[in-house]
Amino acid sequence: MTYCVGLQLDRGLVFLSDTRTNAGVDNISVFRKLFTWEIPGERAMVLLTAGNLATTQAVVSLLDERNVAASERSPSLLTVPSMFQAARLVGDTLQQVIAERRDGGQSQASTFNATIILGGQIKDGPPRLYLIYPEGNFIEAQPDTPFFQIGETKYGRPILVRAYDPAMSFEEATKLLMVSFDSTIKANLSVSTPLDLQVLETDALRLGVSRRIEDTDADWRAISDGWSDALRSAFDSLPGVTL
Amino acid sequence: MTYCVGLQLDRGLVFLSDTRTNAGVDNISVFRKLFTWEIPGERAMVLLTAGNLATTQAVVSLLDERNVAASERSPSLLTVPSMFQAARLVGDTLQQVIAERRDGGQSQASTFNATIILGGQIKDGPPRLYLIYPEGNFIEAQPDTPFFQIGETKYGRPILVRAYDPAMSFEEATKLLMVSFDSTIKANLSVSTPLDLQVLETDALRLGVSRRIEDTDADWRAISDGWSDALRSAFDSLPGVTL
Repeated sequence: MTYCVGLQLDRGLVFLSDTRTNAGVDNISVFRKLFTWEIPGERAMVLLTAGNLATTQAVVSLLDERNVAASERSPSLLTVPSMFQAARLVGDTLQQVIAERRDGGQSQASTFNATIILGGQIKDGPPRLYLIYPEGNFIEAQPDTPFFQIGETKYGRPILVRAYDPAMSFEEATKLLMVSFDSTIKANLSVSTPLDLQVLETDALRLGVSRRIEDTDADWRAISDGWSDALRSAFDSLPGVTL
Repeated sequence: MTYCVGLQLDRGLVFLSDTRTNAGVDNISVFRKLFTWEIPGERAMVLLTAGNLATTQAVVSLLDERNVAASERSPSLLTVPSMFQAARLVGDTLQQVIAERRDGGQSQASTFNATIILGGQIKDGPPRLYLIYPEGNFIEAQPDTPFFQIGETKYGRPILVRAYDPAMSFEEATKLLMVSFDSTIKANLSVSTPLDLQVLETDALRLGVSRRIEDTDADWRAISDGWSDALRSAFDSLPGVTL
């Protein structure tokens, strides 16, 4: 499976993804699921993928090719005038890649499905965060729902819902995402380190801090090891029940 | 959906179930999913159900009828010699009820599926806790995995895994289950109060404390309202991350 989160803060966007892919529990691999594009001073975008790996790799390759081949450069992620147009481009590409395989005779369209989180900022526009469906349509994060999760979303959701604060620093947001990922990784074998972190600061119009978090990462270890004790203390701090 | 948990402690067994059933989000009802049988001083059993309501009600009715009609009284939950035989009886009944509908021409066997937790104790045997599958087979809880969840299991699992301790009192176990249910209820509309609690003390051979926990229950409110703050404090207590 996969676990990826894109989080919208007052200061910008933060993305974290795992890297485990699997075709059965006896066939696991490490693949990057976080991709970036930028023209410094003009635009910066981050894309997270969950679902069929052949589909998501094809989508990213097609988006990249359009950026490279001058003849096909319009529309591309490096030329679209707005994040809304970028989301449309990614959605259309995703929908086409899935349709190609489905039309190849496979009846199970869901086999090739994938879901994408796209976030970024283009000059003269605000930072925006989208969740893009296999059908190519998409929704945008709003203050009421300021984050998107894809893949194995359930184990890590309670802490996100409760501890998220739009005024968080990037460091606090990273810590929050690490806790959410720790709960998921401890419960689902198909989600695993290393993790890929990417920060996009509002109005920087370039990629911010980027980090690969290995299982031995000191911050990760402190949080992963500390969370069990912290949770147990939180539990003990609650009032007792009388039977 | 549903959320039910059966927990094995040194002192006995604790069961908690929600009561919401739904046929679509626009058609919800309250139905009991926790059922008990006892012959005081001789045996006590608790059964929790998740899945198709027609299936689970039929299973419970069939188990009850066998207890009532003297001619059909062997085997019944009130006469089987061991908890293992009780689990076999429940499993066989469940598998037959599902097969009847499936053989009625419906191709989607899974539509009628249900999963059951059965726990209890019969004189001269230890307390035992089983998870019974739609196919009629079952597994038993062991010290490594001392609890079973059915229904919406994911949101409430991290706290169970981390805060469970076999030496817990029944009060602490109830508190733990309430936290697990609170996380689930806050995340999944198809799980809801009132909750049904049942305690079985080891060697009591009769039903212990039983309680219906409404949304206004003082203990439940203290835990449900307190858990968000406790979680946030736990999060704040973790070391910071440097980017």
